[in-house]
Amino acid sequence: MSTLLVLGGARSGKSRFAENWVAAQGTCFAYIATAQALDEEMAQRIERHRADRGDAWQTLEAPMDLAGSIADAGGNSDAILVDCLTLWLSNWILAEKHPPVSELVEAVIVCPRPIALVANEVGLGIVPDNALARRFRDEAGRLNQAVAAAVEQVVLMVAGLPVEVKN
Amino acid sequence: MSTLLVLGGARSGKSRFAENWVAAQGTCFAYIATAQALDEEMAQRIERHRADRGDAWQTLEAPMDLAGSIADAGGNSDAILVDCLTLWLSNWILAEKHPPVSELVEAVIVCPRPIALVANEVGLGIVPDNALARRFRDEAGRLNQAVAAAVEQVVLMVAGLPVEVKN
Amino acid sequence: MSTLLVLGGARSGKSRFAENWVAAQGTCFAYIATAQALDEEMAQRIERHRADRGDAWQTLEAPMDLAGSIADAGGNSDAILVDCLTLWLSNWILAEKHPPVSELVEAVIVCPRPIALVANEVGLGIVPDNALARRFRDEAGRLNQAVAAAVEQVVLMVAGLPVEVKN
Repeated sequence: MSTLLVLGGARSGKSRFAENWVAAQGTCFAYIATAQALDEEMAQRIERHRADRGDAWQTLEAPMDLAGSIADAGGNSDAILVDCLTLWLSNWILAEKHPPVSELVEAVIVCPRPIALVANEVGLGIVPDNALARRFRDEAGRLNQAVAAAVEQVVLMVAGLPVEVKN
Repeated sequence: MSTLLVLGGARSGKSRFAENWVAAQGTCFAYIATAQALDEEMAQRIERHRADRGDAWQTLEAPMDLAGSIADAGGNSDAILVDCLTLWLSNWILAEKHPPVSELVEAVIVCPRPIALVANEVGLGIVPDNALARRFRDEAGRLNQAVAAAVEQVVLMVAGLPVEVKN
Repeated sequence: MSTLLVLGGARSGKSRFAENWVAAQGTCFAYIATAQALDEEMAQRIERHRADRGDAWQTLEAPMDLAGSIADAGGNSDAILVDCLTLWLSNWILAEKHPPVSELVEAVIVCPRPIALVANEVGLGIVPDNALARRFRDEAGRLNQAVAAAVEQVVLMVAGLPVEVKN
């Protein structure tokens, strides 16, 4: 099945590009959100995004068990959007647990529907002072490599435009 | 008319690439600088750059009213260089005013001469601790997307070399 | 002779890509390491990497005199890997000396064997607060530009995959 990894920096148009790609694959879609509504403002923002996507999209929340949600979503939708892997990684690191990257990669590989995954590229700035930030960017880089190796197509978003990395 | 956005990181060769592109479009050029000479050292640096460009270049200072300067420059030169959008954004944010992005984009679209705009890509590092820095990189990302959507050509400079993003 | 610069962020697969490229050029290779074993942990890590590369690789340490090591290695091996330029730059800056960039570039140009050089791209995040970090990223940008101009091929690694910058 068709698989896409959308990489990019802050406000680079990653989510919109991935959403358009998924929306071109059928009529009903799963949106797997890794963000957690930790406060009222965040809850409102998540609700607003859900309303913006409209009725064709079913929203699943998967702050931790992403592989399980991908497996569930595969049976009920024409295509799947995971937004985003970097937040999922952050949730595991904050929980002080080892992120199950190979389980996630396996779920992507066996997914019976087209799937697009969004992730942040965070490794192209100066080395952070902070040890946790250094560890996070190392883990994010390894995660992006593992997923990029498993999918068919990778793009890097630059100012809202896709640069082809793997095709 | 021909329009180019040159994106890149620190010391990636953005300005030189944009300057060469503009200098290939005719014989007299407008250099629109968004930097402000806030101290003596900065004033000397700006003056040195002006001397380096030579007599074919007329320098306009536009720390805030960029759309107006682009409109003015269009009548008096063969091609225009704007260096840089990120500093212009920073000037608006420091003045605690909302940057007039759509007015700028409109000025680029209606500009009767070839125009190259330089901007920094600042969103590919780790999320900054500082709230103002986070807001700044979000706004810079949105600005880059708006301009990239309006121009004909976008390049990302990497180590002095252009990677084609839009053509 | 064939020359390659491999740029990329943290954990982007730079070293592995460069190592595979070098290993395809013959049967005995020089690995020029710019890292210094400043403590026991670092020494163990360097030793582990050396063991991983195997007997086909001879390791040279060149924290400062990189041009000299490249000249030496050229006579004794089929191909050379320099890992990495950014650490070499950092060693010079920490020693409060001016990095001999043009001497390095000259050594790369006259090298009689295929040579791959690894460097970090550190300029695509937000401007650092810290003056030394700002200076470092400016110098790293200039170094990358100087080497990129001298070599035949440049790639930017993104999530383990090469994006062609110069070919």
